[in-house]
Amino acid sequence: MANGRGILTIVSGFAGSGKGTVMNKLISEYDNYALSVSATSRAPRPGEKEGVSYFFKTREEFEEMIRKGLLLEHAEYVGNYYGTPSEFVFARMDEGKDVILEIEMQGAMQVKKRYPDTLLIFLTPPSADEIYKRLKGRGTETDEVIDRRMKRAYEETKFIKDYDYLVINDNIDDCTARVHGIIQSAHHTVEHEMTLVESLTTGLTKFQ
Amino acid sequence: MANGRGILTIVSGFAGSGKGTVMNKLISEYDNYALSVSATSRAPRPGEKEGVSYFFKTREEFEEMIRKGLLLEHAEYVGNYYGTPSEFVFARMDEGKDVILEIEMQGAMQVKKRYPDTLLIFLTPPSADEIYKRLKGRGTETDEVIDRRMKRAYEETKFIKDYDYLVINDNIDDCTARVHGIIQSAHHTVEHEMTLVESLTTGLTKFQ
Repeated sequence: MANGRGILTIVSGFAGSGKGTVMNKLISEYDNYALSVSATSRAPRPGEKEGVSYFFKTREEFEEMIRKGLLLEHAEYVGNYYGTPSEFVFARMDEGKDVILEIEMQGAMQVKKRYPDTLLIFLTPPSADEIYKRLKGRGTETDEVIDRRMKRAYEETKFIKDYDYLVINDNIDDCTARVHGIIQSAHHTVEHEMTLVESLTTGLTKFQ
Repeated sequence: MANGRGILTIVSGFAGSGKGTVMNKLISEYDNYALSVSATSRAPRPGEKEGVSYFFKTREEFEEMIRKGLLLEHAEYVGNYYGTPSEFVFARMDEGKDVILEIEMQGAMQVKKRYPDTLLIFLTPPSADEIYKRLKGRGTETDEVIDRRMKRAYEETKFIKDYDYLVINDNIDDCTARVHGIIQSAHHTVEHEMTLVESLTTGLTKFQ
């Protein structure tokens, strides 16, 4: 149950942690969530829709957004910019929606630095062996790619401490319920409820 | 669902916030909770059982517990000591139980200072008028007592910011579910999951 402004949550996780599935399940099972729409400087692919798949920008437009501070976070991959426009996110939060961003650690840290209220959740398979098993089980990736991802997972463990929550994805329903519980609990932190504290204080002065 | 060591939670709240009812409902509906048993220097009343109602102590025994640091918090009311023996609480937590203490603000602050991991939850009726209405509705208290409690509630608003969560009790089922969700989420904070972080890190070194 939402109260007041929405919560901004970032979900990151190891390869094979099932981030995407959990996000889709949150969106489809509960009506209080909104996904963020990213901006990119890459060209639209067939079927991609402006404002749904991405906000498509030229490199110049994207760089102007960076300069003007209009992005919550951004990064460059293989020559294209990707980022999260703040305006879209804040508009959904003002409507009371809990906005979820699925982004990587570096982006998560950029956002947390500027907006310390952001809730950072990291998803993990139950064990290192299970990360390997899930990657291998996909059958779509070469041993070299799997190897690189396992090395990267190791590097990522060093930054888990900068997240607020670490959630095991051993079962998609349980994991989704846990993530939902964490985000809904965030609505009741004292920081989020300062308006209520003020209205109780004002109300109580009448009885003094 | 509990994982590892239990969470220590303190529930405080305004007069009329229904703390006691919420605590009883948590205990009866979920099997992961344990209530703490207080120690007191007052004499047992008929029907009260040692170790169930209270741990009964002489003043001298109680003062020795204070000196030896065996109490999470303590206070003196009308000539009798009341306090929370640490050993009982920690033993339940080691068994994986989430221990809930229903104590006042001063005690809550004593515990939080010594054990910063303690989760502090403050319960409130939806408004100041509702606090008054509930106290008046009991029909058991004089106007003078109600007046004193309303003044005290006003004083208490100044310290709500020292709590972690502020939860409205507008409906006992909703409120209990919210408190349960908050406590269960606390099992997944990165601080609480450091053993998991270490085991993932160790497991991943095998793949490097």
